[in-house]
Amino acid sequence: MKTKEEVVMKTERTAKMYEELVALCAQAGEIGSLMGAIGWDQYVMMPQGAKAVEVRSRENSALSALHHELVTSPRIGELLQHIDVATLSGAEAAQVYEIQEVYKRVVGVPTELVAQITKLATEAEMVWRKARSSNDFALFQPYLEQLVAFKREEARCIDPSSKPYEVLLQGYEPGMTLDKLDKIFAGVRSVCVPLIQEIANRPKPDVSILCKEVPMELQVAYNKMLAVLLGYDFENGRLDTSTHPMTCGYGRVTNRYTSGWLSALLGTAHEVGHGNYEHNLPLEHYGTPLGTYRSLGVHESQSLLMERHIAKSYAFWQGNFRYLQAMYSPALNGVTTEQFYQMVNLVEPELIRVEADELTYTMHIVLRYEIENALMDGSLAVKDLPRVWNRKMKDLLGVVPPNDTLGCLQDIHWTDGSFGYFPTYTLGAVGAAQLFAGAKAQLPTLERDLTHGDLSSLNNWLKDNVHQHGCRYSSDELYRLATGNELTVEPYLAYLKEKFTNLYKL
Amino acid sequence: MKTKEEVVMKTERTAKMYEELVALCAQAGEIGSLMGAIGWDQYVMMPQGAKAVEVRSRENSALSALHHELVTSPRIGELLQHIDVATLSGAEAAQVYEIQEVYKRVVGVPTELVAQITKLATEAEMVWRKARSSNDFALFQPYLEQLVAFKREEARCIDPSSKPYEVLLQGYEPGMTLDKLDKIFAGVRSVCVPLIQEIANRPKPDVSILCKEVPMELQVAYNKMLAVLLGYDFENGRLDTSTHPMTCGYGRVTNRYTSGWLSALLGTAHEVGHGNYEHNLPLEHYGTPLGTYRSLGVHESQSLLMERHIAKSYAFWQGNFRYLQAMYSPALNGVTTEQFYQMVNLVEPELIRVEADELTYTMHIVLRYEIENALMDGSLAVKDLPRVWNRKMKDLLGVVPPNDTLGCLQDIHWTDGSFGYFPTYTLGAVGAAQLFAGAKAQLPTLERDLTHGDLSSLNNWLKDNVHQHGCRYSSDELYRLATGNELTVEPYLAYLKEKFTNLYKL
Repeated sequence: MKTKEEVVMKTERTAKMYEELVALCAQAGEIGSLMGAIGWDQYVMMPQGAKAVEVRSRENSALSALHHELVTSPRIGELLQHIDVATLSGAEAAQVYEIQEVYKRVVGVPTELVAQITKLATEAEMVWRKARSSNDFALFQPYLEQLVAFKREEARCIDPSSKPYEVLLQGYEPGMTLDKLDKIFAGVRSVCVPLIQEIANRPKPDVSILCKEVPMELQVAYNKMLAVLLGYDFENGRLDTSTHPMTCGYGRVTNRYTSGWLSALLGTAHEVGHGNYEHNLPLEHYGTPLGTYRSLGVHESQSLLMERHIAKSYAFWQGNFRYLQAMYSPALNGVTTEQFYQMVNLVEPELIRVEADELTYTMHIVLRYEIENALMDGSLAVKDLPRVWNRKMKDLLGVVPPNDTLGCLQDIHWTDGSFGYFPTYTLGAVGAAQLFAGAKAQLPTLERDLTHGDLSSLNNWLKDNVHQHGCRYSSDELYRLATGNELTVEPYLAYLKEKFTNLYKL
Repeated sequence: MKTKEEVVMKTERTAKMYEELVALCAQAGEIGSLMGAIGWDQYVMMPQGAKAVEVRSRENSALSALHHELVTSPRIGELLQHIDVATLSGAEAAQVYEIQEVYKRVVGVPTELVAQITKLATEAEMVWRKARSSNDFALFQPYLEQLVAFKREEARCIDPSSKPYEVLLQGYEPGMTLDKLDKIFAGVRSVCVPLIQEIANRPKPDVSILCKEVPMELQVAYNKMLAVLLGYDFENGRLDTSTHPMTCGYGRVTNRYTSGWLSALLGTAHEVGHGNYEHNLPLEHYGTPLGTYRSLGVHESQSLLMERHIAKSYAFWQGNFRYLQAMYSPALNGVTTEQFYQMVNLVEPELIRVEADELTYTMHIVLRYEIENALMDGSLAVKDLPRVWNRKMKDLLGVVPPNDTLGCLQDIHWTDGSFGYFPTYTLGAVGAAQLFAGAKAQLPTLERDLTHGDLSSLNNWLKDNVHQHGCRYSSDELYRLATGNELTVEPYLAYLKEKFTNLYKL
């Protein structure tokens, strides 16, 4: 047994090491955060001339090299080895655990392999662009084969005892397993496929009004107002225009106005959900796990909650459509709230994922999940991808791409080997439904508040139950504390069934 | 005598070390360049809420720490010690010399002293703001005394054998001596003081038109067009609006529209001069001395050339005023080019430096130069600053500040100890006149080209003779190669005499 002095000394030693570890981690995190701000600059502000691009690319290389040194610092490894977690508080122990998980991943992969993947990814993206525009999958095939091989090797380096795809998935969604994911997707499949088939036989709402033009200035003005209404903090954040909507760096969200006024509006809601999460992370832990978003799935749950459960809800538009209608006049003249709600929620199987509606979107993810999983466990060869893709499209959505450009060549994700990323979209949708149901149960006036355009109680609830925790809890624990249950697909399925049964009078 | 093999080996060893040195220096320079882009973001784009400010301040601390490690890397010292400069080309030797000069300065000052100055500067700036707004010099006095003491100590650490003020000055203007500067300022004093006195007795042009309002959109449009006309590369650069006009980061210049349309226009010309210099630095040396501006004085010569020798010239407006008049109609209706030229060049002694015209501006710098110099050599005590300031204002400009807010408390420069910075404004004015005279002598059609709004020959000349050289040559050598002479005050004095004698019919 240890003497009291020994215990005190050990605690003090650990306290010191903990402080050093967190400081190292925060420095790396702050540089990472700066890389986000610089990325935003690149997409939104930076002139795209060759000289400006070259200067930035040199600046980025210099900073990436420094960042890599920070995150792989052997000192982090030493500290992790010697810290006595038993003497730490719960939050501190969580901090150390998360730092360790990330550290294991970054130091596990040989620098040589990282460099090979980076190099291949740059080439693969260029080849993919060519393959996509010329509908030539064979051109891309060898690159994808090599990417699959490299990523399997990467996964093996990180954890040789787990399935490669699960290891990669956990890079985006820590703690997620293929078993859990299989259950979620099985549930989604069982509910969505029949729903989509039934809806296909129902009359569609007239959506010609969505193509009406609304002057840009009005759209920008309305979207800013909408962002404020959804709780976006313009004191500490911006909303700009870029080619693709995104959230990048602290307080930087963007949107686009090139896909019509409805898409712009939904994009704003989506990115504001991401932005609010970032703004409400605890600043005192900025750059460290306790001050960082829990996972990509949880991040997406925040954006999809705003997009789907607010900006696609009847409750919200019931009270707020008339303002939109007034501002966008005459484009929306004569449209009723009910008609608008139907347009916003049109279900129509599409070939392209990013153009899909709420209900069919998840089918695109099921397809990609099944394919990624099979590519990684070797049960699907890359050369068979187009055939399998098209067959699955038929099964899931009843439509078949006429070519690979509109099929398996449509996404950029695989060109840099981001296998395991796609499922986080669905985890976000599932999480959003569960959180929204949880909030509704705990906030009796929520529906009425939404109708009045008052999101303060919802946003406070999200801040208290999700945002402020950073990585303090695992995803499952986070959902359990907020809603009483681990992440489960049931609320999502119930939500989809109720919404679309009513909408299409099934 | 060395054998041929020994010589070859030594050359090869040096070549390797040179390559490593330049790579280290470039990495630090690229991070420095990124700090410029981030600074731009902070002033122009970043929301100013408390949380956004705190995140950025943490990001900045993390990056500054890394940057400091890079520029003080002991490896740079080792390489500098072992490189055999005799085996290098002229450009390479210049590169090594410049790296050494900067390195000596950064490693010469103890980290402790740097930290003390940084801490004091932060406090001093806050106290200065309070002292300025409450006209209370006594409040600021002890801070300024401590800053003077620290900066004298800093200078002593860098070079104990030189005068402290000269050492500090050379941080902004390498190679400049107090002897040379004394000669320049004596010349300026002898010409400007009588000119200003003579002009005081002449009738002033009516400048009421300068207060007319021009819609913001028209101003932004005209200033963009003017920037293009002056050669600004919008493919690789931006022109934005900020509280103060500035150039910060690669291809980022800003302007303001809050001080009237004429001030905005001159501000654009000024910043475009800076921006063009940055855009024309040789990109292959980016981040290293060969790819960096020569000195603050040379940088300012580029901005003042555009502002004074173009945007305040008769030749330029002779051909281009009519376009401005048409765009800003009706504000400038009925104004002749001659009248406009007179307004642009109004001479009127002011209390505030930043509001001063071309002729009186230099008097503000003479005053600050003499005071800084005396503070640093101990011949002036900080407590006597207000008295000496006011006496010099009377001697130089014939006006006396009614209080210290409008007198010795007006500038921010001393609050962070930037002693030696002010003279670079005058070095820029002197350099601009010399370069413009040189260009005129070598480009016979220059005046006509300006009238036609064609600056291509001038800009090519500046690129070839100044911009592309980076720090390849010392300032004096740079001026000598471009104009046949070291930097000399004569062309500047001749220019002022001719211009203002004609303007005011003296």
